[in-house]
Amino acid sequence: MIVKLVLAYEGTGFRGWARQARVRTVEGVLEEALARVLRSRPSLSAAGRTDAGVHARGQVVSLEIPGGSDLGRLQRAVNGMLAPELVLLSVSRARDAFDARRSAAPRHYRYRLDLAPVPDPFTARYEWHRPGELSLRAMRRAARDLRGEHDFASFGRPSERGGSTVRRLERLAVTRFGDRLESTARANGFLRQMVRSLVGTLVDVGEGRIDAEAMPEVLAARDRSSAGRLAPAQGLTLERVVYRSKRRTVL
Amino acid sequence: MIVKLVLAYEGTGFRGWARQARVRTVEGVLEEALARVLRSRPSLSAAGRTDAGVHARGQVVSLEIPGGSDLGRLQRAVNGMLAPELVLLSVSRARDAFDARRSAAPRHYRYRLDLAPVPDPFTARYEWHRPGELSLRAMRRAARDLRGEHDFASFGRPSERGGSTVRRLERLAVTRFGDRLESTARANGFLRQMVRSLVGTLVDVGEGRIDAEAMPEVLAARDRSSAGRLAPAQGLTLERVVYRSKRRTVL
Repeated sequence: MIVKLVLAYEGTGFRGWARQARVRTVEGVLEEALARVLRSRPSLSAAGRTDAGVHARGQVVSLEIPGGSDLGRLQRAVNGMLAPELVLLSVSRARDAFDARRSAAPRHYRYRLDLAPVPDPFTARYEWHRPGELSLRAMRRAARDLRGEHDFASFGRPSERGGSTVRRLERLAVTRFGDRLESTARANGFLRQMVRSLVGTLVDVGEGRIDAEAMPEVLAARDRSSAGRLAPAQGLTLERVVYRSKRRTVL
Repeated sequence: MIVKLVLAYEGTGFRGWARQARVRTVEGVLEEALARVLRSRPSLSAAGRTDAGVHARGQVVSLEIPGGSDLGRLQRAVNGMLAPELVLLSVSRARDAFDARRSAAPRHYRYRLDLAPVPDPFTARYEWHRPGELSLRAMRRAARDLRGEHDFASFGRPSERGGSTVRRLERLAVTRFGDRLESTARANGFLRQMVRSLVGTLVDVGEGRIDAEAMPEVLAARDRSSAGRLAPAQGLTLERVVYRSKRRTVL
């Protein structure tokens, strides 16, 4: 049967999602823990192939396991091995065709910045500490021109060679909470490093290094050097992936 | 001149406040950083001698440094060496008689519990993950009998041999926020391990292991075995220490 895992992890200690030889990755560690419980190594499909240092609060993974497996026991056993660095928030049976990666479900990412003069020891692992003011007005002006369907080649690489760089960015917002600034992004799929490149460019706009009205030209260039800097990985979290209900899919 | 430092630290990587040979402590690390900037090793006095694993958001430390020192430079230099694990939030000149430890200023501590079934990877370092419900009503009933001036020998040891175990507990509250429970405690001074012992006892009361009305007897016993368990260090944070203004002290 096909199973859907929702998991959270603190990305600091992992070299990203994808399994690699001799490197500690989320996929590698999770596969090994599942293999111990299932007694065979499963093949995992993840909604977001997060970069090294990126966190997740609602990563979704699908895999096939033997029918009749006890899902509660599976969850407790994996959490017993990996919590609190990585936790399975839920384990549920999915429809037979479910594939967490191939589905065009909206991915929600959140990027956190701390603008205070001194970093906060309790949140420094999950934020980009970048002291000093930013023009929210300019950042929001630029974000408006980035939303919608565009060729985002200036902001990231496709996951496969020769793949399309056109994406539909449904949301790109900037919010301020005291010393903290958050940028949230939602799309049915992102290019590699796209959220970090969007946020880095918005920060360059907020600092006045890039003109707030230059986004149409940056997009048109289809060249990564035309965009701004890449924001550090540690500020980024994959917050959730929203799949349509089985009911609506069937109808 | 006498200087007052307000500092925050993530206690996970320290074996408590007090300097010890061949062990990494907050006092040891901070003294060394200050010595590099000041070119002589200062003697530190701290408001709270936090245990191994305990955190601080508003620890206060006093020390004597050469008159005319540049306090802004001192702050930046120390933060450059120790942030984000330990940060100086402020460095200011204090009155000549100021001693962070000897002052009877109120110390505010906060203890965080996570009652959710699965721990949270982003806050697990600062909380006691203790899944399952607790009776808030019973915990509050017990807290009421603990507030006020009592001999707290059942809840901790004095810092000096033969010292008094009488303290005035001005606040001991329990608040619930969704899956989280917080207990805040305020007193002009605490015995060693007193907050952790108070919280552990309240949790035993919330679980029904200790009667909510038994606190007068527990206090009267003046014996640590009559109190409940010791709550783990990682849930505890020294939040702030409130000194009276210089003005009022002089008057």
